[in-house]
Amino acid sequence: MADLIEMRSDTFTLPTEQMVSAMTQAVLGDDVYGEDPTANRLEELAAKSVGKPAACLMPSGTMANLAALLVHVPRGGKVLVGNESDIYLYEAGGASVCGGIVYEPIPTRPDGTLALDDLAAAFPPDPDDPQFALPGLICVENTHNRMGGRVLSQAYLAELKRFATGHGIPVHMDGARIFNAAVATGVAAEQIAAHADSIQFCLSKGLSAPIGSILAGEADFIEKARRIRKMLGGGMRQAGVFAAAGLVALTSMIDRLAEDHQRAAQLAAGLAEVDGIDVDPSSVTTNIVLFRVTANGLDDDRFLRAVEQRGLVMGEFGHGRIRAVTHRGLSSADVSAAVAIVADVVREAS
Amino acid sequence: MADLIEMRSDTFTLPTEQMVSAMTQAVLGDDVYGEDPTANRLEELAAKSVGKPAACLMPSGTMANLAALLVHVPRGGKVLVGNESDIYLYEAGGASVCGGIVYEPIPTRPDGTLALDDLAAAFPPDPDDPQFALPGLICVENTHNRMGGRVLSQAYLAELKRFATGHGIPVHMDGARIFNAAVATGVAAEQIAAHADSIQFCLSKGLSAPIGSILAGEADFIEKARRIRKMLGGGMRQAGVFAAAGLVALTSMIDRLAEDHQRAAQLAAGLAEVDGIDVDPSSVTTNIVLFRVTANGLDDDRFLRAVEQRGLVMGEFGHGRIRAVTHRGLSSADVSAAVAIVADVVREAS
Amino acid sequence: MADLIEMRSDTFTLPTEQMVSAMTQAVLGDDVYGEDPTANRLEELAAKSVGKPAACLMPSGTMANLAALLVHVPRGGKVLVGNESDIYLYEAGGASVCGGIVYEPIPTRPDGTLALDDLAAAFPPDPDDPQFALPGLICVENTHNRMGGRVLSQAYLAELKRFATGHGIPVHMDGARIFNAAVATGVAAEQIAAHADSIQFCLSKGLSAPIGSILAGEADFIEKARRIRKMLGGGMRQAGVFAAAGLVALTSMIDRLAEDHQRAAQLAAGLAEVDGIDVDPSSVTTNIVLFRVTANGLDDDRFLRAVEQRGLVMGEFGHGRIRAVTHRGLSSADVSAAVAIVADVVREAS
Amino acid sequence: MADLIEMRSDTFTLPTEQMVSAMTQAVLGDDVYGEDPTANRLEELAAKSVGKPAACLMPSGTMANLAALLVHVPRGGKVLVGNESDIYLYEAGGASVCGGIVYEPIPTRPDGTLALDDLAAAFPPDPDDPQFALPGLICVENTHNRMGGRVLSQAYLAELKRFATGHGIPVHMDGARIFNAAVATGVAAEQIAAHADSIQFCLSKGLSAPIGSILAGEADFIEKARRIRKMLGGGMRQAGVFAAAGLVALTSMIDRLAEDHQRAAQLAAGLAEVDGIDVDPSSVTTNIVLFRVTANGLDDDRFLRAVEQRGLVMGEFGHGRIRAVTHRGLSSADVSAAVAIVADVVREAS
Repeated sequence: MADLIEMRSDTFTLPTEQMVSAMTQAVLGDDVYGEDPTANRLEELAAKSVGKPAACLMPSGTMANLAALLVHVPRGGKVLVGNESDIYLYEAGGASVCGGIVYEPIPTRPDGTLALDDLAAAFPPDPDDPQFALPGLICVENTHNRMGGRVLSQAYLAELKRFATGHGIPVHMDGARIFNAAVATGVAAEQIAAHADSIQFCLSKGLSAPIGSILAGEADFIEKARRIRKMLGGGMRQAGVFAAAGLVALTSMIDRLAEDHQRAAQLAAGLAEVDGIDVDPSSVTTNIVLFRVTANGLDDDRFLRAVEQRGLVMGEFGHGRIRAVTHRGLSSADVSAAVAIVADVVREAS
Repeated sequence: MADLIEMRSDTFTLPTEQMVSAMTQAVLGDDVYGEDPTANRLEELAAKSVGKPAACLMPSGTMANLAALLVHVPRGGKVLVGNESDIYLYEAGGASVCGGIVYEPIPTRPDGTLALDDLAAAFPPDPDDPQFALPGLICVENTHNRMGGRVLSQAYLAELKRFATGHGIPVHMDGARIFNAAVATGVAAEQIAAHADSIQFCLSKGLSAPIGSILAGEADFIEKARRIRKMLGGGMRQAGVFAAAGLVALTSMIDRLAEDHQRAAQLAAGLAEVDGIDVDPSSVTTNIVLFRVTANGLDDDRFLRAVEQRGLVMGEFGHGRIRAVTHRGLSSADVSAAVAIVADVVREAS
Repeated sequence: MADLIEMRSDTFTLPTEQMVSAMTQAVLGDDVYGEDPTANRLEELAAKSVGKPAACLMPSGTMANLAALLVHVPRGGKVLVGNESDIYLYEAGGASVCGGIVYEPIPTRPDGTLALDDLAAAFPPDPDDPQFALPGLICVENTHNRMGGRVLSQAYLAELKRFATGHGIPVHMDGARIFNAAVATGVAAEQIAAHADSIQFCLSKGLSAPIGSILAGEADFIEKARRIRKMLGGGMRQAGVFAAAGLVALTSMIDRLAEDHQRAAQLAAGLAEVDGIDVDPSSVTTNIVLFRVTANGLDDDRFLRAVEQRGLVMGEFGHGRIRAVTHRGLSSADVSAAVAIVADVVREAS
Repeated sequence: MADLIEMRSDTFTLPTEQMVSAMTQAVLGDDVYGEDPTANRLEELAAKSVGKPAACLMPSGTMANLAALLVHVPRGGKVLVGNESDIYLYEAGGASVCGGIVYEPIPTRPDGTLALDDLAAAFPPDPDDPQFALPGLICVENTHNRMGGRVLSQAYLAELKRFATGHGIPVHMDGARIFNAAVATGVAAEQIAAHADSIQFCLSKGLSAPIGSILAGEADFIEKARRIRKMLGGGMRQAGVFAAAGLVALTSMIDRLAEDHQRAAQLAAGLAEVDGIDVDPSSVTTNIVLFRVTANGLDDDRFLRAVEQRGLVMGEFGHGRIRAVTHRGLSSADVSAAVAIVADVVREAS
């Protein structure tokens, strides 16, 4: 990452020294035969970390979510997903392609939640009428990326789970950044995940492992997901190589996410002082900062190019927003430098 | 239909005497071998009637739309459809199941159109980014059922087609009631269909044939659709039996749709006089009337049961609306009787 | 069919006068709403005719088979089908496309049966090993088209059903010509169908209805199949129009299939007398005759063109065979004429 | 692997010290953004190593094959695959599930080839007849696992490619062990791959990398495959971690495969001396040995358990065969010990 201040995503985190060391010492086997002891140990720990009976290591969050959808929803069923969710927007429609599943996007509220009334409207008046695809799953995202890393409240999740149970369908949580939610609120990840039948979370992103996501749930659910992982091509041989890094991520990288949150708060506070930047620091609760460039004549593309020339990389995020993500690779000084660069760029544009 | 005044749908129309007679005299063959002369004649005439080079007879509008989507959109592509369209709501998600196609519902405006800005937002900023499913087709519905039988303007359709062409994708028109649009506006069906690469229309509904829909488009498009029809199980043997009725529908039943429109106008005007009914007669341009029951304490279910007890059948239509559809089976006297029944029911409820 | 002797298929049968008359008098309704009394009556009778609790009218045998496969086999399961079966060869791969189902073709023996050992080999040694797709259904075809209309014995069917039950999967019978099997053996169709969980049969073909096939099975199976019919586009409006012909087919056309069988026997016996034609009359038990042209220098294409010039149409059938099918449209004199034409053509070629 | 002599598969190879070292020093980035320099370098080298313009790193051979099939074959097309191929038998039917593709298994000859006549029979007589799914791809496997690691001859591959071109469809080579073929014959991998439009090969197996397979082909083909990789969930973040091992595999592990082949020859020769073992040493050309236990009363299960008790692991392989695979983890002494164990076990059973 050299001299760049990389704020496009926390997926750019590099493995720690401890991870590299663990990877070199991992006891390995063939995980397709279920014989990689390190991968097995990771799956056991990962399941526990979110309070589920079983877990399966996946090459990516996309595959973990896709496998979950394929297990939960039969061919021709509908998955109710937020219209601003990663699953709907960024995962290439895999559930329709590989599963014959219909996505029904539900409006996402600013706090990342889906209104129960909107979900209710997705259930056909007469489920026996063959015109209608039937809902088979509700997905929530926590923390919610496109809503600025917002944490869904436990009260909401409990209500949502009751709603889903009342309608006879399960809940899947896309918890790519679930530990950011846990750290930010002080609620244990397993208490958060308790409101979902299955959960996906990433060992990469803030936790800094190079590769890997976890799908967790009931034992028979995971058994089916493992089948689907093989079909999709996610079965890997000496998976212990990166599972070793995942073990380090789970055992020693969670608490430090608090630092990322502080950096994000620092960034938001700094940007709020800049004329020509519109940001709401009170909405920043984890490691994602969304803001708008309101300075005259400075459109997003020009803004992004200008800050990049000064060594700061951020990302366009739709709806006229810029996203900046904090992570282990950024110090407090980097954040201060980033604010200064933004201030410079905006000033020069005026 | 006996003594019932059937206003649930124009799909309840029965074949005319001329149709029945044509069906008994049809020259038949095996249409799976392409040797049913009556089916072939119908396909030729149907193509002409919407100004397309070729057409294919389908057992239903659902299959005609599904085949169109499967030909236009590759596996993993997106179809942009109105969130209030028949294709999205009432066709059981077939394109995802049979085609691995992602539905992207676009907000439908009260006049049945989709805003170009909303369509534009469905195209990803970077089409090379593999996270995104890519749009492969835009669908419009004309007349638009859930928007009260509204006709899409030629100006809008022209603009939409330009937009689609600019984005390199085709337009499919779900013209289940395209001849209602033509008769209501005096614009020939082929001029309407000229703004679409493919069009589906029903021989049943207002045109009164017992069975059958047409998919029309370019010759190679139809050749591919015919392949898909076979795979879906829509290839039928002596299809001339009902194709004969379809020929009568196309040659002699179009102009009389004007009557249905007059009956709908009469119904809307009548209902507008009833206290406790909310209807906008100016929005009724074809054969569909949408209204609300605003009378105190009379919810839709009770209202529908009450009118049915008096011999009038209408349908609940979502968003708190009732739908009444006029067709060949309803006389002006039936419409007057229907208004009287509604007035009675509302009065008694107050 | 004019002066042609049409032996390509029994799908060329035209409706009887009684059928045409029934079609003109049918009481109709909208079958998509489940309100077509004639279609309902047909479904009830059809279910009874094969001894199943429920049935659903389909536009074709292809759709009936496809719906059966989609109900029985989950996404990613295997259907074990004969490598010479109609489902595998002639139905455009619909189960893979619409259902994500893997076809596993099993060698077909000359009598149309699949060896249990071959079926057993399709079950993976370790069903928990996620490398393997798991069998979800066995299909048999009875009578077996490509094996010359052979009837599967009751003993075999009983054994097959036991085998399937032992492996925990159902049996679907493609009984497109099930009544030919019943008439040829004197075993009631319901006794034959008793060995299958679901059965498809055609109202067209020998039974002479213009359109329509039946899928029959348990009530909940049929409910699911009806859902799939809608999705595939097989829901039709005034389906009673051709259901009326189907009722005539079921009530008065079954016994006469014996005549078709006699004609086939007559044809085979006649052809056996012709030098240069290789046919085994003892293998002809229903209405299909397969033979080879062994006359020097007369390849199948030339043979077929030559008989067609003399007014006789037959079909190439793979593996160097010609197929001739008898049906209601052929008299004993037609068969004699056909034999004479074949003899002429072969003689001239020598 | 401790004291076990592991002969179940070459997938049990562990990374070399050089690989581990390379993994700890790899320059990393986010490969989902295309910014992992090590992964990019590997893809470049991998493409060159098989003489193709482009390549894409995949988490497994299963995904590499699946992506290839999805790019080559449209929805509803057929892939012609050997009935004994890994793609057909061991990849969970992914192409039907994710691609709506029909597998057509073709008999595999003892040398691993598919007869052109058998392939030709999979093309329907009339491609315009919509009953038939159309072939879209031919797959070959080289070396051929279930045929004992046989290498397909260059002459055959050239003939097959001409056949495919003549029929207008591409060839995909499942070259999981392509470098075994190259080393065994002295023909460069790129000359072998020249007969295929796309090729998959594994960095794991004999080459000893812990994870990863390569799909190589034309640039636009690989661009499409990369899209599909993302959809399937095969896009990984710091993929450079294991790509670094893949680079070592490609640059320094190929030539040593000759040793594995010598060990296999040694094993086959040794086993040929054992009464009660049926093996054909002349058929062993790479690193796979297939043999049968013919000793009285010693079935495969008992045999496998007995040798395992003595520290030797082999695998059951269908058709009454045992498979033993040689690889970097086995010395010549291990092979001698294995022969001795087998001899002991067989002797005691007699």
